[in-house]
Amino acid sequence: MTQATPRRGRRPGAPDTRAAILAAARELFAAQGYAGTSVRSIGAAAGVDGSLVHHYFGTKDDLFLAALELPVDPREMLADVVALGPDGAGERMLRVFLAVWDDPELRLPLLGLARNMLEPSGHRLLTEGFLPAILQPIGVALGVDRPEVRMPLLATQVVGLILMRYLLEVDPIASMPAEDVVAVFAPTIQRYLTGPLP
Amino acid sequence: MTQATPRRGRRPGAPDTRAAILAAARELFAAQGYAGTSVRSIGAAAGVDGSLVHHYFGTKDDLFLAALELPVDPREMLADVVALGPDGAGERMLRVFLAVWDDPELRLPLLGLARNMLEPSGHRLLTEGFLPAILQPIGVALGVDRPEVRMPLLATQVVGLILMRYLLEVDPIASMPAEDVVAVFAPTIQRYLTGPLP
Repeated sequence: MTQATPRRGRRPGAPDTRAAILAAARELFAAQGYAGTSVRSIGAAAGVDGSLVHHYFGTKDDLFLAALELPVDPREMLADVVALGPDGAGERMLRVFLAVWDDPELRLPLLGLARNMLEPSGHRLLTEGFLPAILQPIGVALGVDRPEVRMPLLATQVVGLILMRYLLEVDPIASMPAEDVVAVFAPTIQRYLTGPLP
Repeated sequence: MTQATPRRGRRPGAPDTRAAILAAARELFAAQGYAGTSVRSIGAAAGVDGSLVHHYFGTKDDLFLAALELPVDPREMLADVVALGPDGAGERMLRVFLAVWDDPELRLPLLGLARNMLEPSGHRLLTEGFLPAILQPIGVALGVDRPEVRMPLLATQVVGLILMRYLLEVDPIASMPAEDVVAVFAPTIQRYLTGPLP
């Protein structure tokens, strides 16, 4: 019986390699946007081969999520919502959103990320990263028509809600029970997902 | 015939006094919020009497607007909208909003102000200045019930629209013709103004 050869890419110094890839990814995604950044260029900036980047982080989407340091993976969180299709998705998405943001342990890292994205240096992470790489695929998976219009519409309301409820903590939005937030905002989200478009 | 006496408060050095009052107002409104700042304390910080502050700037609301350096007075712009009452106010407010923000000469100073308010140092100007001193009175003048709930709801959508259309310039929101923006967002604004509340 021969000894199994060690898996390629595993080697001493791995934690440093991983950190170097993440640092390069953050820098390039912020400077060039999601679409303008290749896994290969991230590898090159970190001094490793592109295949090693995939080995550590999976797909470019996965790496982008890792670079954002999101405390949850929105694709996982919304898997059940997405599976049920567009009808009623406004309310279901909002409930998942509130469960995550109203959790004190998750809110802190999310707030840090939201603040970064509102800084001029972080705008591209939102506009050329989060929106096309995370929000847009959720709309596609949900099966709405014209997701490239509907998801940005949805984003206008969700971004405003994040700002007023969590970042600026403006009452009564900040202190509103989750059920009331759903009652007020779910019809808006639903209209953007399935209502008439000009 | 006697010569008219010069008006009180007019004196050499007035431009400096005016500038000193404005500078003091900006500093105190930003540090203490709108409610926590008195005209008297602004006068004291500028080294003049409160009555002189009123002489130059009118009411505390007027001074707040002057300190914000808004290129238009939202109270004047919305006077006609407000006079017609809550029915259809969503669409009418949105049309005024778009006429102002889509004007290239007005947009630039408004963008500067929006950026300032999104900086941590400017949050109080928004939450304890703009919202209670400008937005809230518009809701009261409009005659909606519970303006203290409805106007912050409206703000979540308008702030998100400003962010996506003007500040981050995310398409298709940024390039959407004004008529389409009205078609998409007026029903949302109207629902927050007159729709059911929890």
